[in-house]
Amino acid sequence: MATQQASAPLPATGRIAGFHAIIPAGGAGTRLWPLSRRSNPKFLHDLTGSGRTLLQATWDRLAPLAGPDGVVVVTGVAHQVAVADQLPELSAASLLAEPSPRDSMAAIGLAAAVLRHRHGDDVVVGSFAADHVIHGQEEFASSVAEAVAVAREGYVVTIGIAAREPSTAFGYIEVGEPLGVAGAPRGRQVVAFAEKPDAATAAAYLETGRYRWNAGMFVVAAKVLAEQLAARQPMLQEGLERIAAAWDTDERDEVLGREWPALTKIAIDHAVAEPVAAAGGVAVVPGDFAWDDVGDWASLADLLPARADGSRVLGDDAGVHLAEAPGAFVVPRGDRLVAVLGLPDVVVVDTPDAVLVASRAAAQQVKQVVDALSDLDRDDLR
Amino acid sequence: MATQQASAPLPATGRIAGFHAIIPAGGAGTRLWPLSRRSNPKFLHDLTGSGRTLLQATWDRLAPLAGPDGVVVVTGVAHQVAVADQLPELSAASLLAEPSPRDSMAAIGLAAAVLRHRHGDDVVVGSFAADHVIHGQEEFASSVAEAVAVAREGYVVTIGIAAREPSTAFGYIEVGEPLGVAGAPRGRQVVAFAEKPDAATAAAYLETGRYRWNAGMFVVAAKVLAEQLAARQPMLQEGLERIAAAWDTDERDEVLGREWPALTKIAIDHAVAEPVAAAGGVAVVPGDFAWDDVGDWASLADLLPARADGSRVLGDDAGVHLAEAPGAFVVPRGDRLVAVLGLPDVVVVDTPDAVLVASRAAAQQVKQVVDALSDLDRDDLR
Repeated sequence: MATQQASAPLPATGRIAGFHAIIPAGGAGTRLWPLSRRSNPKFLHDLTGSGRTLLQATWDRLAPLAGPDGVVVVTGVAHQVAVADQLPELSAASLLAEPSPRDSMAAIGLAAAVLRHRHGDDVVVGSFAADHVIHGQEEFASSVAEAVAVAREGYVVTIGIAAREPSTAFGYIEVGEPLGVAGAPRGRQVVAFAEKPDAATAAAYLETGRYRWNAGMFVVAAKVLAEQLAARQPMLQEGLERIAAAWDTDERDEVLGREWPALTKIAIDHAVAEPVAAAGGVAVVPGDFAWDDVGDWASLADLLPARADGSRVLGDDAGVHLAEAPGAFVVPRGDRLVAVLGLPDVVVVDTPDAVLVASRAAAQQVKQVVDALSDLDRDDLR
Repeated sequence: MATQQASAPLPATGRIAGFHAIIPAGGAGTRLWPLSRRSNPKFLHDLTGSGRTLLQATWDRLAPLAGPDGVVVVTGVAHQVAVADQLPELSAASLLAEPSPRDSMAAIGLAAAVLRHRHGDDVVVGSFAADHVIHGQEEFASSVAEAVAVAREGYVVTIGIAAREPSTAFGYIEVGEPLGVAGAPRGRQVVAFAEKPDAATAAAYLETGRYRWNAGMFVVAAKVLAEQLAARQPMLQEGLERIAAAWDTDERDEVLGREWPALTKIAIDHAVAEPVAAAGGVAVVPGDFAWDDVGDWASLADLLPARADGSRVLGDDAGVHLAEAPGAFVVPRGDRLVAVLGLPDVVVVDTPDAVLVASRAAAQQVKQVVDALSDLDRDDLR
């Protein structure tokens, strides 16, 4: 059956049989404060002016590939209602609430284990963050289809983004030899994952042509993931199994309450991707679509279309007045007039209870404001 | 009696017999938008962090000199309630409401005429704007006392501010020979008033040592003012007389409704000060106290004490977070957190319905925003 799938992938824009998408919707995205915050994180916002939030856009990308019943969202209990509100097509059974954050391996591992219990060993899961921006659905779909084909051969598969520049903001994937998997002509071995490099190293990576950006997208057979995890983090795997077995029963809350707080807190990169890559078990397919993790205000500004004067406004610009402010970026979400005079490249993010005014360069340091909020006794704004 | 007053002025900080203070409280102060606006103008705001609004501080300066019953405020009908609220010691009879703005001569002339009707020909009036900042009460009081002494000799008297710099933002007074008036050792003839100069001219003025800033402070016997006005603007003077005669009667509204809209719209400078100076009838006494007309955000910032990092906050700085923003000026009046990162000399004025973000230099152009509000269909914010 694996071979059958691999040799006859569905059309790039159509359903991929046996594929289930996992959307881990977590993280506060504090580098996009004050819009994004713990109580109202990044993935719940429309950051592209498309009319859809990042979570909704992620759904829109994955539902055609996995089917509306094939997408699972894992989120914190605090965001359960907001996620359900934003995704009316998401069934209650497909919305998994974490009692507390226990890092990405627990979140993704839980969803994979629940899906395997529900749908059996043929399930291939793909995990895609809820708060990234992607343009190019056809290219995205074709990458996922190839990744699924490779995953059916037993690999942990990642999608490697074409590096546009020597960025120091992302981790890298060192790409090796072609795998020759049927249905996945572009599938290759991963030599290794590399941490976020310094500028010189990043430039050297780009020079070789062998490195791609690591966007944290993983596609793997649920059974393979369970086996790899059992070999490397057996206690975590056993805890997840017990929770998954109880998930669709009356025991869920009891088991979850007992097991969840004890799960090892570890990222999927460290728990599985890196060690399995070292053992030759990770593959990569190229993702040549436009991708951004919207890491800070400056990178978000770059994603938006510029107005005639080079400024950018995320949202309704009726209440924005700019003069002598080329390259300014305004996010008017406070229902107020925002007037900017004589400040090129300024970033102004206006919300009902906080306003950020920063140079484009300094906007990356917004985390220090969020940290300072505790000192200011304003945890309500974090 | 004039000689008696002049030769025996009261102590500088005490009452000045026969002196009545007029506070014209008008003007929107749009250069301090969005805090100051037509509906809530500059004089109603505490712009120094003293806990007193500019209007209240003006009252605090004048009430000791004229007595609480000797201060009259002239304001627009729209601000009558706000003025009364801010000045509980001001009697209803001392609050004169203009049905519509007809420039400074009508406002000051009305108050002077009403005071003359009430208190007779010995009244000396002094007019002091409600929206200037002054520090140095003793020096101020002594300037006013000398000005009153000179006014009793029949002069129109102005108080000339010591020029601190070659400012192009103010008009100037060219000072002439000493007058030798008893009780006013510093009283001198005014040669002429000069309009706001260009930079070279301002520097030349400063060089001569003969020029002082014109702060628009005029002290004059009510009878003299009436005579000068009758000679130069007879229709205006007659209209004011008819209104003043009816003011404390049942006829006030009727006469005001008929006469006020027909009064010539002219500034006191053009109606009286300049022509009378040309005829040798204007005197000046020095005002060596600290004075500022708070013309824009940059000049207001300069009036405030700097914090350790050179930044300034007008109001409570508990909700202000500044990083790498030396010289920044923040006015937090929107009840929200204001965070500024990496923007030296930025001006941020936060109010509930509008926020201004500007470079210090560009803050002077805020009028263009106010003008644009009509185009944006947001006259409510002007």
